[in-house]
Amino acid sequence: MAKELLHLRDQIDQVDKQMLDLLEQRLALVEQVGEVKSEHGLPIYAPDREAAMLASRRAEAEKRGIPPQLIEDILRRTMRESYASEKDSGFKCLNPELKDVVVIGGRGQLGGLFCKMFELSGYNVKVVGRQDWEQSEAIFANAGLVVVSVPINLTESVIDKLSNLPQDCILCDLTSIKQKPLEAMMKVHQGPVVGLHPMFGPDVPSLAKQVIVHCEGRGTEQYQWLLDQFGIWGASLCPMDADHHDNGMTLIQALRHFTSFAYGLHLSQENPDIDTLLKLSSPIYRLELAMVGRLFAQDPELYGDIILSSEQNIEMIKRFHQRFGEALSLLDNKDKSNFVEQFNGVSDWFGDYSKQFMTESQNLLKQANDSIQRD
Amino acid sequence: MAKELLHLRDQIDQVDKQMLDLLEQRLALVEQVGEVKSEHGLPIYAPDREAAMLASRRAEAEKRGIPPQLIEDILRRTMRESYASEKDSGFKCLNPELKDVVVIGGRGQLGGLFCKMFELSGYNVKVVGRQDWEQSEAIFANAGLVVVSVPINLTESVIDKLSNLPQDCILCDLTSIKQKPLEAMMKVHQGPVVGLHPMFGPDVPSLAKQVIVHCEGRGTEQYQWLLDQFGIWGASLCPMDADHHDNGMTLIQALRHFTSFAYGLHLSQENPDIDTLLKLSSPIYRLELAMVGRLFAQDPELYGDIILSSEQNIEMIKRFHQRFGEALSLLDNKDKSNFVEQFNGVSDWFGDYSKQFMTESQNLLKQANDSIQRD
Repeated sequence: MAKELLHLRDQIDQVDKQMLDLLEQRLALVEQVGEVKSEHGLPIYAPDREAAMLASRRAEAEKRGIPPQLIEDILRRTMRESYASEKDSGFKCLNPELKDVVVIGGRGQLGGLFCKMFELSGYNVKVVGRQDWEQSEAIFANAGLVVVSVPINLTESVIDKLSNLPQDCILCDLTSIKQKPLEAMMKVHQGPVVGLHPMFGPDVPSLAKQVIVHCEGRGTEQYQWLLDQFGIWGASLCPMDADHHDNGMTLIQALRHFTSFAYGLHLSQENPDIDTLLKLSSPIYRLELAMVGRLFAQDPELYGDIILSSEQNIEMIKRFHQRFGEALSLLDNKDKSNFVEQFNGVSDWFGDYSKQFMTESQNLLKQANDSIQRD
Repeated sequence: MAKELLHLRDQIDQVDKQMLDLLEQRLALVEQVGEVKSEHGLPIYAPDREAAMLASRRAEAEKRGIPPQLIEDILRRTMRESYASEKDSGFKCLNPELKDVVVIGGRGQLGGLFCKMFELSGYNVKVVGRQDWEQSEAIFANAGLVVVSVPINLTESVIDKLSNLPQDCILCDLTSIKQKPLEAMMKVHQGPVVGLHPMFGPDVPSLAKQVIVHCEGRGTEQYQWLLDQFGIWGASLCPMDADHHDNGMTLIQALRHFTSFAYGLHLSQENPDIDTLLKLSSPIYRLELAMVGRLFAQDPELYGDIILSSEQNIEMIKRFHQRFGEALSLLDNKDKSNFVEQFNGVSDWFGDYSKQFMTESQNLLKQANDSIQRD
């Protein structure tokens, strides 16, 4: 048996070596595509072309009896590397006449990412930090675009200091709330203004498919090139009213963060053995635990500021707490039929989305299981 | 430019066709490995061999300047298909002398999965459902193994009926709590008894790396072959005391399910536009929404029964609700420094796990982003 297995494994080794050859070739070819795109200012992410390519590969796989989802997953994974490396060839500069891009807070993580992207696109980038305010007047005098990327609790006070920007300078911010910063920017600056919320952290491998929300201030025509530039970086642009945005964020940001915080607090007080929990955990529980635990590897100030950034957030969290309490009373009465009834009501509210979420998460849980190493 | 791109894309097409060839070859070779393993009764999941293989592929990739994580992810994804198809060649039967395997509730989803696995391993499988109790005496008389796989609220009453099993018959259950069913089994049956909790749903592509918790009843030597049989199917066996298990489940099953239920209820009452939420969602928010929404595509009875299965669960959920309320008071006082202090306390409690969870979830979030299609 050992000999038989050894022989088969040698053959698998050979196949895998050839696979590496092909990956090498594919990455090199896509790099060349990237160079052509960069030269002509095409976005690195082309959804239609990508969908068509994947459909044709799936069809080809099906013909040969290979699971089509396998080749799709492999190609999507490979494209991630290609997107990440496309920045190596730089990006076309859509506004070469622009004066300086000034990033306030450009030494922070997210600010730093935007500095890098602007530099890769051939802009002249200047950074202003806390310690540079004294000498900042000269810097702002030559600014064509000012990006405010500072902690959420400082945003408004920093914006208030920007009353001396050149009239044609574009002013934007990257804060995770939009109403107040946008108002402050409109008040302090008479030129073009746009509120931005990049819906991703500084650790993304590339901007491909990452969402940037933009809230109109004034001078759309003057800042359109900026949105197009984000598109070239691969980002997906999402226009939205500032108040719609902030309402959504109350639910999906403040409430979720606070719930994770409270769950972590609860866990630490229950004090179970994490190792035992992990042993017991199927991929879905492990994932849920990881989604909570990851919060506590991050900056408490940042999350405190996000949660405390508006009265709306606190009200929302209170309503959740109250409804949680109401739902709890179902359990006290061991009222399963009422539980089922309420459950069905929520199912109706989700409509087809619950099935869609089921499929989506199933695929992801399979991927989570792929990555697990057991002993 | 069009011509240039077309030429490059033709070459990429060629590479991808060769990739399909290699995948075809690899799947066929691993299928042969599976046949050899099945013949000799080796587990389909061999963690050490797998880890060594992946390490050598990573090293090879690194030498060629290919990101090592890329080849690891591709191979792990490919192995999923191989694990799933290994069942096609069947599994070695470790106890060919065994009388019938009787699965009570074998027409249910999880019971059905175990029926299939036992059949693929050459056992003689009989199913008993609600409507078969009348004629079940003859079936049980020839049972070598009885598996109870019925809804959690019926488990004990079904077990209570099993007082006439042959003395040497193994009795086990698949319920997601373990203390009460184990006690009931010990009381009703004098032969070998083991409590099992498969930590996965019926939709897994294979049992590779899936955890099965087993709680000792009596007659370990007599049922050891059964655990070994699960190992051959690829499962990872996890021995645990029934009370430890149930404590863990209170936290990671009852509380999580109930929190998702309460969050869904809250969402449906806030009534935001799900489409807008999704547009705003970065992979992490989308994932969190999906983890909640998926609950409501499932059976409310099942979740009601799990949550209501013990007083412990309800007490745990109450403690969470109370701590949530205490944490809320931090917000009322806008007490950021106290928030930060408590946050740091939880970080300390998580210790190195929070960083591990961060890394794990980052990788998964990248995979989630790979799968997203934007327009």
